[in-house]
Amino acid sequence: MDKDAPIGVFDSGVGGLTVAREIIRQIPNERIVYFGDTARLPYGTKSKDTIIRYSRQIVNFLTNEGVKAIVVACNTASAYALEEIKDEIKVPIIGVVKPGARTAVSVTKNKRIGIIATEGTINSGLYTKVIKEQDSTIEVIGKACPLLVSLVEEGWLHDDITDQIVARYLEELKEADVDTLVLGCTHFPLLRSSVGNVMGEGVNLVNPAYETALELKRLLAEKQLANVKEVDSPSLMYRFYVSDAAEKFKNIANMILPFDIKTTKQINIEE
Amino acid sequence: MDKDAPIGVFDSGVGGLTVAREIIRQIPNERIVYFGDTARLPYGTKSKDTIIRYSRQIVNFLTNEGVKAIVVACNTASAYALEEIKDEIKVPIIGVVKPGARTAVSVTKNKRIGIIATEGTINSGLYTKVIKEQDSTIEVIGKACPLLVSLVEEGWLHDDITDQIVARYLEELKEADVDTLVLGCTHFPLLRSSVGNVMGEGVNLVNPAYETALELKRLLAEKQLANVKEVDSPSLMYRFYVSDAAEKFKNIANMILPFDIKTTKQINIEE
Repeated sequence: MDKDAPIGVFDSGVGGLTVAREIIRQIPNERIVYFGDTARLPYGTKSKDTIIRYSRQIVNFLTNEGVKAIVVACNTASAYALEEIKDEIKVPIIGVVKPGARTAVSVTKNKRIGIIATEGTINSGLYTKVIKEQDSTIEVIGKACPLLVSLVEEGWLHDDITDQIVARYLEELKEADVDTLVLGCTHFPLLRSSVGNVMGEGVNLVNPAYETALELKRLLAEKQLANVKEVDSPSLMYRFYVSDAAEKFKNIANMILPFDIKTTKQINIEE
Repeated sequence: MDKDAPIGVFDSGVGGLTVAREIIRQIPNERIVYFGDTARLPYGTKSKDTIIRYSRQIVNFLTNEGVKAIVVACNTASAYALEEIKDEIKVPIIGVVKPGARTAVSVTKNKRIGIIATEGTINSGLYTKVIKEQDSTIEVIGKACPLLVSLVEEGWLHDDITDQIVARYLEELKEADVDTLVLGCTHFPLLRSSVGNVMGEGVNLVNPAYETALELKRLLAEKQLANVKEVDSPSLMYRFYVSDAAEKFKNIANMILPFDIKTTKQINIEE
């Protein structure tokens, strides 16, 4: 496998760019091919079978693009599809749930961890499973917050109405006295200030993107796949594909990434 | 064409059931085959090309099911895809935009009409075009309200937060002094009370579903396609297909329809 080959990163849409951003920051000399399934988003409200089918199509596309490793930068796809798909392909593949869960375990003191995520991620129970495997005495409280995804996509990031919705969703997690909260959907780091205000300073907010990028770095080193070439300009290092031509992708992307995306290429992922 | 053949009705998900409900009420002896594209919803934020492709796949499915007419029970698909598709098929097909626009023209007194809809429907400009064709002196003010779709799907129909969001979206329509407001997304009739409270009693709320069912009735009579058989039980008269097995469909459907759906069949619409 070519060390100069890109990393494949995919998500239902723009959310996974918060993971790509972290990979770019921690491993700046790796190339990235990003795919956002904007024609079929969101994933968080759809069934396991559908998410597996979509993820399989995307993984096929990315392996055809010659990637040396794949990051499932979507909590719902990580929770539903990663286990199903990982043995079907030759390149290593990691998700965001396990790194996020491990970080939460390492920082909690009172052994009470909250998870906010999509319905799919919560229903999968994967965060709870991974956390309990490491420490069965930890209590995990999951809460699906579907509206938060829409609020981010509408761009209401710092907004009184968003604060009220966040407060309502988080009420039971506050009552459960969690000291650690996993931002278990890639959109949620964009609502970090609102979530932080509601939970208060004593609560650790875990963004799985950080630990995911770290795990990718370890994995590339272990498999002797780390790129040794110099960092090049963003337009040469990063390619962006979407399934729907919506301008919205570029608008939100340019808010998330440290550089402006000039071109995104649309492909028909169903074929 | 068999008069006893069903009417095909489709939408991105459950929203179109508000149109199906109206057809059932006005033409109770017609059979219906309903398709909700729950694996790819929502449509309102996606591009014209994608919506045309999805609509074409669904229309093919419905014609294979032997429908005698098709109702595009989704404003976005009506706005983006109806014109493209209508000449490709042999059965008559109608959407919800034209009937809704005509009703608005017939009820406005001050010639100021507001449209609330998805981004796709607003961007298409179709409501404005159809209204202006009938009376070019009417002023049309469109407002995309993407969060309202998510609020309905979250079930927050009578809720203080929903009222605040509705109030924010409608602010400029109130300032524009419209006397008529089209609920230009099939989800929005479910927020009728909230919208009505914000706009006040003097404003007519137009639900295109009513006029669409009436137009379907006229069309069937004109083409001599009206069913003359007696009304049968719902389970024999109405069939429901979805592209994703989400339980959510049945839950919201049973809130909208005057009977409980017992079975929905999942199909892979991409193939």
